[in-house]
Amino acid sequence: MNNDYLEYKRKMHAISDMSGISSLLQWDQEIFLPAKAGELRARQMSLISGMIHEQLTNPNLLAIIDRALKNATTDTIQSRNLNTSRKDILRKNKLNRTHVERSALIISHSYEAWENARKENNFDVFAPHLEKIIELKRSEADMIGFEEHPYDALLDEYEPGMKTSNLERIFRQLRTGLNALLNTFPLVQKDDRFMYHYFPKEGQWELGLDVLREMGYDFERGRQDLSTHPFTITFNADDVRVTTRIDENNFHEMLWSCIHEGGHALYEQGLSAEHSGIPQSEAASLSIHESQSRLWENHVGRGMSFWTGYYPKLQTRFPSQLKHVNVNQFYAAINRVEPSLIRTNADELTYHMHVIIRFELEKQLIDGSLKVRDLREQWNEMYKKYLGIEVPDDMRGVLQDVHWSHGSFGYFPTYTLGSLYAAQFFNQAQKDIPEMEKHISTGNLAPLLSWLRKHVHAQGRLYTSEELCEQITGEKLNDTYFLKYAQTKYTALYL
Amino acid sequence: MNNDYLEYKRKMHAISDMSGISSLLQWDQEIFLPAKAGELRARQMSLISGMIHEQLTNPNLLAIIDRALKNATTDTIQSRNLNTSRKDILRKNKLNRTHVERSALIISHSYEAWENARKENNFDVFAPHLEKIIELKRSEADMIGFEEHPYDALLDEYEPGMKTSNLERIFRQLRTGLNALLNTFPLVQKDDRFMYHYFPKEGQWELGLDVLREMGYDFERGRQDLSTHPFTITFNADDVRVTTRIDENNFHEMLWSCIHEGGHALYEQGLSAEHSGIPQSEAASLSIHESQSRLWENHVGRGMSFWTGYYPKLQTRFPSQLKHVNVNQFYAAINRVEPSLIRTNADELTYHMHVIIRFELEKQLIDGSLKVRDLREQWNEMYKKYLGIEVPDDMRGVLQDVHWSHGSFGYFPTYTLGSLYAAQFFNQAQKDIPEMEKHISTGNLAPLLSWLRKHVHAQGRLYTSEELCEQITGEKLNDTYFLKYAQTKYTALYL
Repeated sequence: MNNDYLEYKRKMHAISDMSGISSLLQWDQEIFLPAKAGELRARQMSLISGMIHEQLTNPNLLAIIDRALKNATTDTIQSRNLNTSRKDILRKNKLNRTHVERSALIISHSYEAWENARKENNFDVFAPHLEKIIELKRSEADMIGFEEHPYDALLDEYEPGMKTSNLERIFRQLRTGLNALLNTFPLVQKDDRFMYHYFPKEGQWELGLDVLREMGYDFERGRQDLSTHPFTITFNADDVRVTTRIDENNFHEMLWSCIHEGGHALYEQGLSAEHSGIPQSEAASLSIHESQSRLWENHVGRGMSFWTGYYPKLQTRFPSQLKHVNVNQFYAAINRVEPSLIRTNADELTYHMHVIIRFELEKQLIDGSLKVRDLREQWNEMYKKYLGIEVPDDMRGVLQDVHWSHGSFGYFPTYTLGSLYAAQFFNQAQKDIPEMEKHISTGNLAPLLSWLRKHVHAQGRLYTSEELCEQITGEKLNDTYFLKYAQTKYTALYL
Repeated sequence: MNNDYLEYKRKMHAISDMSGISSLLQWDQEIFLPAKAGELRARQMSLISGMIHEQLTNPNLLAIIDRALKNATTDTIQSRNLNTSRKDILRKNKLNRTHVERSALIISHSYEAWENARKENNFDVFAPHLEKIIELKRSEADMIGFEEHPYDALLDEYEPGMKTSNLERIFRQLRTGLNALLNTFPLVQKDDRFMYHYFPKEGQWELGLDVLREMGYDFERGRQDLSTHPFTITFNADDVRVTTRIDENNFHEMLWSCIHEGGHALYEQGLSAEHSGIPQSEAASLSIHESQSRLWENHVGRGMSFWTGYYPKLQTRFPSQLKHVNVNQFYAAINRVEPSLIRTNADELTYHMHVIIRFELEKQLIDGSLKVRDLREQWNEMYKKYLGIEVPDDMRGVLQDVHWSHGSFGYFPTYTLGSLYAAQFFNQAQKDIPEMEKHISTGNLAPLLSWLRKHVHAQGRLYTSEELCEQITGEKLNDTYFLKYAQTKYTALYL
C-alpha cells in the first residue's frame, strides 16, 4: 500500500472535519445567531478559514501528494484524487492566509448587512459591503490569474474549466430557444389561486418531512430546520442538513425549496463519509450539484408521474384546501409559466432569464464596467428587458439573493447549467430504467435514486462535469434535451 | 502601555473565540445532532480541543505572560489576570495534547452512550464508557498532582483551591443542619397536584421567554432552545444560550430549569465581551456560577415577593389551570419539601442530599474504592440511606445526570457550595438594597441584577470564590445564612 497516499487521505480527512466546523458556524449563523453575536461569529469564521487555508497550503501536504503520485498508476482513482487535490492546492497557494482571513471576516459582516438591508428594503445599506466584496473578488481573480476575462478565474472555483466566453455562447443559444418557446404560448394562464389559500405551517412542515422521506433523504444523517433562505449544508456525508421556509399563504414556497434542497442533500448523502476530504467524496461541480436539485425539483416534483401517486396523500393532508382541485388542475398550477420577480419562485422556463441577468451583471461588476452605485438601476432595466416586468422594490429586486453577500461570484451560471445537465441525465435515466415513470407514479423513487447514486453520486469529483456527462449520456452537454423536454411538457399543457 | 500585556490579551482573545467554536459543537450535539453524526462530531471536538490546548501551552504565550508580569504593578487587574492565566497554563502544561484529544473523543462518544443508555433505561450500556472516563480522570489527577486525595486535583478545575477534606467537613455540618430542620416538619404535605395538570407546550414556552425577559436576560445576545437536558452555554458574552425542557404534565420542570439557567446566563452576559479570554471576563468558579443560578431560582423564583407581582400574569396565561389556586397555595406548592428521586426536581432542602451522595460516590470512584460495576447498587443504597427512598430504575437513578458522561468529576459539590454562597449573597443584597423585596414584588428585578452585576459579574475571575465572598459579605463562606434562610422560610410554611 502507498503510505504517502494514506497520509494524504488522513490529512485531507482532518481538513474536511475542520471544514465541517466552518459549515456549522455558517449553518448556525443563518438560522440561530443572536442579533449582537455577528462580530464574534465573523472572527470565528475568519479563524477557521485561516486554519484550513494554512493546512491546505502547508508545503508538507503538497510534498506528500507529489510522492504519492510517483507511486500511483496513471488514471486510477488514486491518481485522480491526487491530481485534483494537487490542482486545488496550487489554486489555494495563489491566495495568502491574510486574504483568506480577511475575506471570511468581510463576508460574515456582509451577510449581516444584507439581512439588515432586506429588513429595511434598501439596497444602499448593503452597497458599501458589496463594494468591498467586489474589490475582494477582483483581487482574487488577479491572484488566481486568467487569460480572457477576470470572471473566468472566479467561475473556475465553482465550475472548473468553464469560461465566460463559453457561457455567453451557451446562454445566447438557450435564450433564443426559450424565447421561441415562450412566444408560442397563449397569454391565458392556468388558474393557481388555490396555491395561495391558507396552508397552515404545521401541515406544511410535516409534508416537507414526508416528501424528503419519500425521496430517500436519511434523517439519521441529517435534519431539516426553518431558515429565512433555504439551503443545504454538509458537515460530511453523515451530517447533511437542509432548511426550508414556509409561507402559509403561498404553498409553492415550501414545496419547491424542500424538494430542491432535498435533491442537493441526496447527492451529499450519497458521497462517502469514509473518504471525506478527497475528491472522490466531493461533488463534481456546482452545475452537477444543481443538476441533482433541479432533477428532483422539476423532472420529478413538477412531473405528472410523481403527483399521480402522491396527490391523494396531499389531498388527505389538506382536505379543505384541495378537495375541489383535481390532479390535472394541480399539475397545471404547479407548472404555470409567467415572468415573475423572484428567481427562486420562477417557473422552469423563465427561471433562466433570472440567471442570465445575474451572469451579465456579475461579469460587468467584476470587469469594472458596472459600478455598485449603478447596480440597482441596471438590475431593474434588465428585468424590464429580459422579462418585461417592473421591479417595485429592492427586496424583490437586487436584494433577493444571498449569493453576493457570501462572496459567491460565478455561482449563478451553474444553476442554468445544472438544469441542462438535469434534463440530459433524466433523459438517460428514462432510457436506462425500465418503466421508470411507472415506478415514480406508484411512489417508488428508489430506482431513480439508485441510478443517480451509481452514475453521479458514487463518482464524486473523479471526473469533471463534462467528462461525467459524456460518461453517463455518451455526449457532451447539449441544451436540446432541456428544450425538447420543455417543449413536450408545456405544449401539452398550453396548446 | 504594556505591549506584552496587549499581546497576551490578543492571544487569549483568539483562544476564547476558538473555545466558543468548541461550545457551538457541544450545543449542537446536545440539541440537533443527527443520530449517525456522532463519530464526526467526536473527531471535531477532539480536533478543536487539541488546537486550543496547543495554543494555550505554546511556550511563547507563557513567555509573553512572564514578560508582561515584569512590567505589571503588583495586585492590579493586569497582574491578577496574568497570574491567573499563568496558573491555568501551568496546569494545562501537565497534560499533553494526545491526552486532551483522546479525552474529547472519549467524552463525545460517552455522551452518546449515556443518551442511548437512558433510552434503554439500562446503566450497563453506559458502564464501559464510564470506566474509560474514570481511567481518564484518574490519570489526569496523577498528571496534575495532588497532596491528599486524587479527587483534589479534579476539584481544583472547577473550584480552585478546594480540598476533599474541606468539603467533607462542610457537607457533614450541612447534612446535620438539614436533617435537624427536616425532622421538625410534620409529614403532612402541601397540595401541589395542580402543578401536574395539563400546561400546554406553547404557553409554557412563552412563559419561559417572558420570565427570562423579566430577569433581564438579553435576547439580542442569546437565545433559548429546547433540549433533553437544560443547560447554559457561552460562546462569549455576546452569545450566551440557554435551553429548557417542557413537560406538559409537570409544570415544575420548565419553570425551574428556565429560571435556573437564566441565572447562569445573566452571569455570563454580565462578563465583558471586550476582555474575552482573560480571567476578568470569566466566571470566578463553578460555585460562584451556581450561586447565581440558585439565587435566581430559589431566593427570587421560589420566593413570595416575586410571585406577589408575577402570579396574576401567570393566572392570565393559564386561566383554566390556575383560576382556583391563589398565590399562597401556589407558593406552598412550589416549596413543597419531600425526598425525591431526581436531583434537578428536588426541593431546596433535600437537594443537597443528592449532591452529597454524588460527592461520596465520585470520591470513591476516583480513589478506586468503588468499581463502576458496583456503582448502581451503591447509588441505590445511598438513596435509601440519605433520602429514605427506593430507586426504581436507572433512568431515575444512576443515569439521571449528564455530568459523568461529560467527564465532569468534581463538579457536583459546587452545586451545594453555590447554594450556600447564594444565601450569603442574597442576605447581603437585602442589606445593601433599600426595599429590595418590595422592588421584586412589583416586578422590578433591575436593582438586584445591578447589584449582582457590580459585586459579582463585573469582578470576573479576578478573585477566588473565597476572596469574592469576603469582599462582598465581609466574611468567609458560612452555612448559617443558608440554614437561617431555610429555617425562616420553611417554618413559616410548615409550622
